[in-house]
Amino acid sequence: MKKMIGNIAVGQSGGPTAVINASVVGIYQAAKEMGAGRVYGMVHGIQGFLERNLILLEDYLETGSGRELLKRTPSAFLGTCRYKLPEIHGNEVVYERIFEVMEEYDIEAFFYIGGNDSMDTVKMLSDYAAEHGKKERFIGIPKTVDNDLPVTDHCPGYGSAAKYIATSLKEVIRDVQSTGLSKPTVLIVEIMGRHAGWLAAAAALAKGGDCDGADAVYLPERVFDPDACIDHIRAAAQKKNTVVIVVSEGIRLADGRFVCELSGSADSVDVFGHKQLSGCALVLADMVSGATGFKTRAIELSTLQRSAAHMASLTDVEEAVLAGSYGVKAAAEGHTGVMTVLKRLQDQPYLCAVDIHDIHMIANREKPVPDEWITEDGRGLTEEFLRYARPLIMGELQPLYIDGLPGHLVRKEIIS
Amino acid sequence: MKKMIGNIAVGQSGGPTAVINASVVGIYQAAKEMGAGRVYGMVHGIQGFLERNLILLEDYLETGSGRELLKRTPSAFLGTCRYKLPEIHGNEVVYERIFEVMEEYDIEAFFYIGGNDSMDTVKMLSDYAAEHGKKERFIGIPKTVDNDLPVTDHCPGYGSAAKYIATSLKEVIRDVQSTGLSKPTVLIVEIMGRHAGWLAAAAALAKGGDCDGADAVYLPERVFDPDACIDHIRAAAQKKNTVVIVVSEGIRLADGRFVCELSGSADSVDVFGHKQLSGCALVLADMVSGATGFKTRAIELSTLQRSAAHMASLTDVEEAVLAGSYGVKAAAEGHTGVMTVLKRLQDQPYLCAVDIHDIHMIANREKPVPDEWITEDGRGLTEEFLRYARPLIMGELQPLYIDGLPGHLVRKEIIS
Repeated sequence: MKKMIGNIAVGQSGGPTAVINASVVGIYQAAKEMGAGRVYGMVHGIQGFLERNLILLEDYLETGSGRELLKRTPSAFLGTCRYKLPEIHGNEVVYERIFEVMEEYDIEAFFYIGGNDSMDTVKMLSDYAAEHGKKERFIGIPKTVDNDLPVTDHCPGYGSAAKYIATSLKEVIRDVQSTGLSKPTVLIVEIMGRHAGWLAAAAALAKGGDCDGADAVYLPERVFDPDACIDHIRAAAQKKNTVVIVVSEGIRLADGRFVCELSGSADSVDVFGHKQLSGCALVLADMVSGATGFKTRAIELSTLQRSAAHMASLTDVEEAVLAGSYGVKAAAEGHTGVMTVLKRLQDQPYLCAVDIHDIHMIANREKPVPDEWITEDGRGLTEEFLRYARPLIMGELQPLYIDGLPGHLVRKEIIS
Repeated sequence: MKKMIGNIAVGQSGGPTAVINASVVGIYQAAKEMGAGRVYGMVHGIQGFLERNLILLEDYLETGSGRELLKRTPSAFLGTCRYKLPEIHGNEVVYERIFEVMEEYDIEAFFYIGGNDSMDTVKMLSDYAAEHGKKERFIGIPKTVDNDLPVTDHCPGYGSAAKYIATSLKEVIRDVQSTGLSKPTVLIVEIMGRHAGWLAAAAALAKGGDCDGADAVYLPERVFDPDACIDHIRAAAQKKNTVVIVVSEGIRLADGRFVCELSGSADSVDVFGHKQLSGCALVLADMVSGATGFKTRAIELSTLQRSAAHMASLTDVEEAVLAGSYGVKAAAEGHTGVMTVLKRLQDQPYLCAVDIHDIHMIANREKPVPDEWITEDGRGLTEEFLRYARPLIMGELQPLYIDGLPGHLVRKEIIS
């Protein structure tokens, strides 16, 4: 086979997902098929790369079982980071160090699997390369449970999280509906999503012939009115004994405060300046029980929802592999400063193509749930959203079980 | 086939599990094989029975797909209750009403699937029948994620919850280990278990070739010392950047207070006088971050752990079916005032038989984790526990997927 590409490096960055490793497998397989040299993995992304903390993926993926296991391993096999590259001008020393490592290891192409912030890294590095006449190529591979990258129809990682959320919601609804209750019970389920409500919206998928679904789904795209929410719960409790409310962690009041801030907790900020949120279900449960006297139960899906590889969507896994492999093809063809994007051709039967897009149109931008996909009352999703989301959760990739539990591929130094 | 039994009634009581409905299937199938008449389901247990709130299981289970779907449906299909029968003497009127309903529907045998409190109902009813010369038979079928019924080797429901807990723990450990951290992170996972630590103990199953497991597992069987816990976390953080602590919701201080009580919340009491507990992971996370400055994350598995039928253990499902069907056999042979029990013959290969046992030796008694299965330092489980628990999580029963999500069988009136 004609050698189209030399050594390459792969990194993972930002919050992990259930299928972020499937993109590593896609990159690895495509690179090897194209006759690439070594495939280096950056341990903890660009931060590890700067410290020459690299591993050879060949050590783990030369067997098919290694690749199959990695596809089923949640969270970032290589480790992630939340390192933000500084502005190029005035900070050339950082960039020079990165290119030194590139040259030292003879790395021709650099693949970075991540979300909005990680795509900023790809943009900065490709900009620097262009300005300084460097030949190395920089390719972004989309990954985020938040599903908020622009241009791409959806992001690998979202479908599996959505499948887990809807599955778990169906199960806890079955649970709460089974108890013989003397007074109404309000179940409040908190789902990740800082600014975009895609994950909470996935709760709408739970509704079907065997499940009434949630009585309301509140997204951060709309102002949250606690009084209106409590009125809605009171009205729903007239008709049924259990009321199910789904909230995105990022819901805010009209004055801009996050609901979770009302508890006086959680005001820490990450390196990108994002507030660390948690606990809005608990805050709301207190509010609701105080106002109505109803029994409440708050459930926070926490990091379970982004790491539940045991409930991965096969569609999502396959697209994650494809996003990776197509990125390698793009690099081999000489592209740089681009991200792989998914382009939906039709909903039913679902058809999705893959392409690349200029990273400058993607980095640091967030795509919210479209306003027209939120029902007029602001507490539900339209049929159009369901047509969009349903294909993304279809199919399963069964875990490989070891001693009764899903097996994972883990870097040697992780296990003591 | 010779008719061995007439009409029967089946009820579910107490907290639901992922496999409580598999016992309904076992009872139904065995009854039909023995030529039983009608199989009535009590809607919300004995409470519904008193109100003649009965359904015919034939309406749902005459097709194989109905039974296969019900086996995969978490939580109580019939609805549960937490109704406590009063003392017999002085309250004969309640018992007379129950036997009136029995006679009205010509019910010869009454099957009650539940835990400790539910077995009290079986005991009271069979005692009343014996005292009053009633011919109806009362059989208990064990069910509890808490695994704390005496006599039986283990309880249907435990294996599936244990499999879900260990699977989820592996996944969230992968998640927390993937982030490139500047300071140690302490992950605190709270697991159900009021007095017995069986569920939290299941976290020990996560440890294996691909997972270091938890750094400590604290059970309610031992006094919890917050200072010792914090010292242990500090020591662990010397060697690794992420420390994983698993706590049972019921852990208590030396003075008897629940750790969750330290927050001043959660002091409600259920009808059996049990305190409703939640939030000890949050309380502990605050304590740990205050004392150490480490980053903390609290995850509460909440009702997810008892309703995750999508991760059911096949062994557990099969034993739940068996516990139900064997109960019918016992009733047909004339037994009453007994519970089906599982008797382990050997660990490897795992062999388990089924038998019946006098309900008086079971009702209202709790079986804690044996002291010798807890490590001397009080924060781990021995190999003997692992040999006990491992067979219970083996095998999988794949969900039946509808539109990308596990399908459930639900009573008609539940869906609006």
